[in-house]
Amino acid sequence: MSESKRVLIVGGVAGGASCAARLRRLDESAEIVLFDRGPFVSFANCGLPYYVGKVIKEESDLLVASPEMFEKNFNIAVRTHSDVVSIDREKQEIEVKEVQSGNTYRERYDVLVLAPGASPVKPPIPGIDSLGIHILRTIPDSNRIREWIEEKTPERAVVVGGGFIGLEMTENLANLGLKVTLIEMLPQLLPPLDPEMAEPLTRHIEKKGVAVELDDAVTAFEETDDGSLVVKTKSGRSHPADQVILAIGVKPETALAKAAGLELGEAGGIRVDNSMRTSDPNIFAVGDVIEVRDGVTGVWCHAPLAGPANRQGRIAAASIAGRDMTFRGVQGTTICGCLGVTAAATGANEKRLRQAGVTDYEKVYLHPGSHAGYYPGAKRIHIKLLFSKTDGKVLGAQAVGETGVDKRIDAFAIAIQGGATVFDLEEAELCYAPQYGAAKDPVNLAGMIAANVLRGDLPLADWSQIEETDALLLDVRDPKEYHSDHIDGAINIPMFELRKRFEELPKDREIWVNCAIGQRSYYAARFLLQNGFRVRELSGGIITYWGHYPI
Amino acid sequence: MSESKRVLIVGGVAGGASCAARLRRLDESAEIVLFDRGPFVSFANCGLPYYVGKVIKEESDLLVASPEMFEKNFNIAVRTHSDVVSIDREKQEIEVKEVQSGNTYRERYDVLVLAPGASPVKPPIPGIDSLGIHILRTIPDSNRIREWIEEKTPERAVVVGGGFIGLEMTENLANLGLKVTLIEMLPQLLPPLDPEMAEPLTRHIEKKGVAVELDDAVTAFEETDDGSLVVKTKSGRSHPADQVILAIGVKPETALAKAAGLELGEAGGIRVDNSMRTSDPNIFAVGDVIEVRDGVTGVWCHAPLAGPANRQGRIAAASIAGRDMTFRGVQGTTICGCLGVTAAATGANEKRLRQAGVTDYEKVYLHPGSHAGYYPGAKRIHIKLLFSKTDGKVLGAQAVGETGVDKRIDAFAIAIQGGATVFDLEEAELCYAPQYGAAKDPVNLAGMIAANVLRGDLPLADWSQIEETDALLLDVRDPKEYHSDHIDGAINIPMFELRKRFEELPKDREIWVNCAIGQRSYYAARFLLQNGFRVRELSGGIITYWGHYPI
Repeated sequence: MSESKRVLIVGGVAGGASCAARLRRLDESAEIVLFDRGPFVSFANCGLPYYVGKVIKEESDLLVASPEMFEKNFNIAVRTHSDVVSIDREKQEIEVKEVQSGNTYRERYDVLVLAPGASPVKPPIPGIDSLGIHILRTIPDSNRIREWIEEKTPERAVVVGGGFIGLEMTENLANLGLKVTLIEMLPQLLPPLDPEMAEPLTRHIEKKGVAVELDDAVTAFEETDDGSLVVKTKSGRSHPADQVILAIGVKPETALAKAAGLELGEAGGIRVDNSMRTSDPNIFAVGDVIEVRDGVTGVWCHAPLAGPANRQGRIAAASIAGRDMTFRGVQGTTICGCLGVTAAATGANEKRLRQAGVTDYEKVYLHPGSHAGYYPGAKRIHIKLLFSKTDGKVLGAQAVGETGVDKRIDAFAIAIQGGATVFDLEEAELCYAPQYGAAKDPVNLAGMIAANVLRGDLPLADWSQIEETDALLLDVRDPKEYHSDHIDGAINIPMFELRKRFEELPKDREIWVNCAIGQRSYYAARFLLQNGFRVRELSGGIITYWGHYPI
Repeated sequence: MSESKRVLIVGGVAGGASCAARLRRLDESAEIVLFDRGPFVSFANCGLPYYVGKVIKEESDLLVASPEMFEKNFNIAVRTHSDVVSIDREKQEIEVKEVQSGNTYRERYDVLVLAPGASPVKPPIPGIDSLGIHILRTIPDSNRIREWIEEKTPERAVVVGGGFIGLEMTENLANLGLKVTLIEMLPQLLPPLDPEMAEPLTRHIEKKGVAVELDDAVTAFEETDDGSLVVKTKSGRSHPADQVILAIGVKPETALAKAAGLELGEAGGIRVDNSMRTSDPNIFAVGDVIEVRDGVTGVWCHAPLAGPANRQGRIAAASIAGRDMTFRGVQGTTICGCLGVTAAATGANEKRLRQAGVTDYEKVYLHPGSHAGYYPGAKRIHIKLLFSKTDGKVLGAQAVGETGVDKRIDAFAIAIQGGATVFDLEEAELCYAPQYGAAKDPVNLAGMIAANVLRGDLPLADWSQIEETDALLLDVRDPKEYHSDHIDGAINIPMFELRKRFEELPKDREIWVNCAIGQRSYYAARFLLQNGFRVRELSGGIITYWGHYPI
């Protein structure tokens, strides 16, 4: 056991609270004090949208642990309503302001842990401070939103920002009966997904009655005479609203660290080493305030996620207790549910690979059922798998669907963590009974298709290049499917006639073959390739091409 | 492309059908003929219990592919009602008997693939051929059961055998309104689980009204005057029944291979190499007829599972097409649902480790929620994780619960496949939003607890040794919990009082500490260990000890 240390922790939610509890378990002798400027510690901030939506009924349901519990079970002193306003690194002291009294005092530390989190972005848009415009970060914030809804009974809400919080707030407000308009500056929802994978999510929530406005930025909030708001956007549109939720994003709350001269990084967060130590050896930082290395590309990024924050807290505690434990970076596993659809991702997406200058990758799309098709209730899952062309290593996966999405992304997440290849996915042995999966689970299928590509059995065409190609487009779906809709210029030879009619096709021209999802076109491609045709297959079929995701 | 080969495949379900279709995709020139003695190929045999239960409504729903589809899409000839009765290895010919006409003929092969599957065990118990006693292997079998139920409107069913089929039939018969008695010879249900993990499954289905009779063997079936049956058991009990399902197990259908002199193995299946080749280089075998190496222990075993059968079919096809692809053995991932509870496992269980002579393992138990506790609807998942003491490698996992079981076992399955350690599980980055998981997912928690053990932070006591130990039993639950029930002889100091009262405890005697699930006892153990006490923690708490799984 090391000599008794005085450890002060700034911020008592995911990272800070984990660090405090873990440190106590590793070092009974340390003196540990946890400061938070708010009234609570260790509350479930990921539950706030659902508390607003009354799925989580009581404020007390959000409290994972109380100050008393920290005191009794862990001998950890908790000081709420206590804002840490400055750090004197030389004297190893912090200055604490008691929020309620305004008094300040100083506390000496041997080790300081910074876990203040990230704060919602609030850009200087005209009218942004109008009544009825809310952000969501804390329990008091969510109580304010609940009160607004109860008192003003708003009918129309505008949610600004189509990330996690925006989508979760959309769900909860819609379920409370509000008509929601969701405005997003980017041309897609949910940035962890690539744009074509965000498409089914968008279509799904539109079907559920949400008005989604992409590629449009808010330019002003105007108050009207009846006390409601009008949200003006760059495209010139006006969206009336009785309530606005700002969910534009968060930025690391680095003011304290910056003023103390701690090193910040290129992604705007506190820079820490693998043991969560800042540029000052007596100061650690964890959670949403730091920047981390992307586990796949190695690029520094800001990844405000609860899971990594918890692990960072544990690792900082281990380091403080003199143990060796290393943070491995953030893989970026994320999930979001909205009105019955789930979207999730792990590892790198294609945008991030491109930004990092990675070109040696390939991608496949598939749309398997969530479980065996012969058992009722299966729903399509739309999957995109990214993998290395050189060695088949899995780089990233995205999935969208009504059910079974989290399970597949978790499987991909463990595969990526372990450096698995698509050949491993092909052979993975997963749970199969018809109500749970399939003999060839979606995870297997993704691996099988990717392995076919890497083995040279299935050359791929990219849906984004169909407009430019000189190739002959061959649709091998049944005539009824073809006639209901098909890619412009595509000819139709159904798979079941191909063996009789293949001589109609040219040998001197590349053929791009598609079906609905990529199964029949794979059979067709294999047949034609072995008969001397030059063939590429449209991965994910017409469903991926058109974004006509029938979920 | 190799020269045109004549490939005959015996058996047209999972392994045989997969092999045929894959071979066509790899070798357009091969002549492929698929034989099956039944009326169908490529049917969903894992769906049969649900077809009996009318969850799957139509016979046609079970048909994954038709002979016509094989013909048209793959140029594969299918001969149903065709029983392959012998192999002439010297002449490379098989003898085929047309089931309907009784005629026989011979067919020459370059390559033969055996995929006849496994047949239900039907021991010579007196009365076993009585009317009303059914087995379930084929679509005609399930039609017979459906007809019996429709015509006889049975009220009482006895299911003999508590494995997958037995449990799935129990669910389906119970859901049709029958009162089911489930009789199992072993002292536990579902042998892929260790006995203490089968306990919550048993309790759950008992609560749902199933009479479970363990550790009892059927000795006779007697017909009564009213046309019903009485099932007599070794223990002397009599169970009246209007219908009996025999689901005692299956054995590889090796008669054909044996008569042809192919090598069989110690587990009773056809012995094949990693490319699925039998002792005759021109004959391959796949699916339930072969024996395989246990991927964790390396022991030969019979593992009749659809997923591996499909992969074996693919690998045999690759080998036949002259490609190099290797079967990696069977990891034993299995899942079974019964009346609202799911039980699943992957990798080795403790029984198998012991049988294989492995002693260098450790185990932990935990009972986390299926998702964050603050979001409504979370259900406990009972988990057992087995791992190597030496290097922390994950060896096996079992889980039982109402929801989220398949997802966690899939994550463990991928981890085992990749050689992950418990330290990897600890750091795994999985999907977290409150309706899907937790910031510390059950998979992380299993890894964290196991890592605590391996790091020496948490010495464990085994629930099975409580009766013998001289240790002081310390229960750190709250007094109300302690007084409602506790382990005989345990004293109570609640965790929240331990820091004040720990001096009541002896330093010269080992202390075994427990709580409900293992969380508070972990805190207590860490505190006491650091204060110089000799402590072990009862992994999984009183819930694991008593098998009082409140699911």
